[in-house]
Amino acid sequence: MRVGVFGGGQLGRMMALAGYPFNLRFSFYDALPDCPSAPLGDLYGDESGSPESLDAFLASADVFTYEFENISTAWVERIARHKPVYPGVRSLAVSQNRLNEKALFDRLSIPAAPWRRIDSLEALQQAVAELGMPLVIKTVTGGYDGKGQFVIRSTDDIARAWTDLGAACPLLAEAFVRFQRELSIVAVRGQDGEIRCYPPAWNVHHQGILSHSVVPAPDISEASARQADAYIRAILEDLQHVGVMTLEMFDTGSGLVANETAPRVHNSGHWSIEGAICSQFENHIRAVAGLPLGSTDPLRPSAMINIIGRHPETAAILAIPETHLHLYGKTERPGRKLGHITVTAPTHIQLMDRIKVIAAVLPNRMAL
Amino acid sequence: MRVGVFGGGQLGRMMALAGYPFNLRFSFYDALPDCPSAPLGDLYGDESGSPESLDAFLASADVFTYEFENISTAWVERIARHKPVYPGVRSLAVSQNRLNEKALFDRLSIPAAPWRRIDSLEALQQAVAELGMPLVIKTVTGGYDGKGQFVIRSTDDIARAWTDLGAACPLLAEAFVRFQRELSIVAVRGQDGEIRCYPPAWNVHHQGILSHSVVPAPDISEASARQADAYIRAILEDLQHVGVMTLEMFDTGSGLVANETAPRVHNSGHWSIEGAICSQFENHIRAVAGLPLGSTDPLRPSAMINIIGRHPETAAILAIPETHLHLYGKTERPGRKLGHITVTAPTHIQLMDRIKVIAAVLPNRMAL
Repeated sequence: MRVGVFGGGQLGRMMALAGYPFNLRFSFYDALPDCPSAPLGDLYGDESGSPESLDAFLASADVFTYEFENISTAWVERIARHKPVYPGVRSLAVSQNRLNEKALFDRLSIPAAPWRRIDSLEALQQAVAELGMPLVIKTVTGGYDGKGQFVIRSTDDIARAWTDLGAACPLLAEAFVRFQRELSIVAVRGQDGEIRCYPPAWNVHHQGILSHSVVPAPDISEASARQADAYIRAILEDLQHVGVMTLEMFDTGSGLVANETAPRVHNSGHWSIEGAICSQFENHIRAVAGLPLGSTDPLRPSAMINIIGRHPETAAILAIPETHLHLYGKTERPGRKLGHITVTAPTHIQLMDRIKVIAAVLPNRMAL
Repeated sequence: MRVGVFGGGQLGRMMALAGYPFNLRFSFYDALPDCPSAPLGDLYGDESGSPESLDAFLASADVFTYEFENISTAWVERIARHKPVYPGVRSLAVSQNRLNEKALFDRLSIPAAPWRRIDSLEALQQAVAELGMPLVIKTVTGGYDGKGQFVIRSTDDIARAWTDLGAACPLLAEAFVRFQRELSIVAVRGQDGEIRCYPPAWNVHHQGILSHSVVPAPDISEASARQADAYIRAILEDLQHVGVMTLEMFDTGSGLVANETAPRVHNSGHWSIEGAICSQFENHIRAVAGLPLGSTDPLRPSAMINIIGRHPETAAILAIPETHLHLYGKTERPGRKLGHITVTAPTHIQLMDRIKVIAAVLPNRMAL
């Protein structure tokens, strides 16, 4: 069986590394000849995204998936007319459009920040009046790692927000959620409907980019862990999603509030390569290939630390006990995700000590 | 850094899968265009083994290793004149020649079966008189999985053994060791001399081919575990070996007797991909690349089960809890190693139960 992956970034690379042991072969659609996945399969795609390049890609595999959600739904629909694509267009339509996502949370009674659809400056002014400030304004499509957002903190900001984002209407206005920390839950659903959830991760961001995750999230209450599990199960079932899905949440101290979904393996799930019995990448590939899912149980407390902008010295990282390095084959550039580090330990306390040692040898400590 | 691997079989394939996360790239020397490693790097080599193909391979990488020991030492020496090769020629000279290996065991006071070098029929007759029967006759070079051996059980067999193997003189005659079970220990030595040992494995063979391994070897005494550790450390230090090395041993019930070494990652160490903190493949690559070694501690009881001759149904295997499948991209052929299964469990008892479930769905149960 051949698996075609839209996108040749680090997520595709790690999917392929997880899939070779099943005798799967991989092809990738990516315009960059030196993309992270390039050494691990056949590469298709050109800068113009020509229909011919898509047809060649379509012919190259038996089943398809994607590693980033900002892919044209028209393309996925075109592939889906000929061959299976997992996750399906329904999952993509939700994660590509924040209004659809908000409607989904409401429909499934999953707590989320109160929101309004914004089509005009007047609607924006009314949203400020109704939802209060700070008010977060987001583009409905696109935007990631903090881009495409504006936080209205005073009435003076309303006009500025409109100038900044008004052209991208409709917009989403979201009430500001006061939270103690950010959590995420990664889960996988098989073609037979079976669902397995990894333990929730505690995620720490730095300037809008994920800095590090600790799993299981320290001191998470049983009630919160059960909530997270129930929310992502409801979403997976509603969308009839096949593959890995991630739900980012705010931990308010008195419950969880859903933030956003990603219909794919997720940065906050990278710890699972070493920290869980079966990794998110292996489980995604199992689901896409129609195979039974593996255990999402954690083996021991784990942390994932992103390598952003500059590479650390490999030897300095690997000298730290129970530390694993995952580089993505990228050149250095400020703000770029170049790789990640996984560190495990017998206890959370020892884990925190090891994280400190890692922080000391990282050129970019992010939020560590 | 680019790593060149002599041989493009499953061991090279699993080395590459372990090495990509360090941003390493791989090239392989193998005459077969569809060898297991082919999709994971650049392939060199031709059927005649021409000097030109070796030169091209030499130019393709910065550091070299090998995945099978029956490689020409002249070739390795030729590479070593230009670029680093790990393990070195000294390790290769021992494992390629059973007389050298026996002399090494004697020199390091590692218990092994009494032996004689055989250069003539008379020497063979004298060895039978001195060492008794059964007497195992082996070619000094080549031979694996039970090939190139003859067991003399009566004086009538002496002439037959000579007819069979005499042309391959010198031969090795080895006293028969009565043992309860076979064990192996896999260890790794870094370029800085650091040594780390995996726990000993219990290996069960079927018709001369490894059927399965259980790690840690059940009910192994502390004394035996310490012996195994001391023996392989002595060998690694004596040879100034860099990379993974394996020592196969007989457990006599009253101590261990060394059988043979392999200067490489080993079938009985495949469990470590999921069962140890750092796998034998990652540790071998760390050593070859001059990086600090990873922990060889086991995470939980593990078993490795070989898939020989015929593939099982992938879904049937993966439906079993904590089971992982590693296929080598090979076509079916009787006696051929097509892949292996790793299964882990919280306890040895649960592990044995899972092994039984796996046995029930394997087309070739081997010794299970």
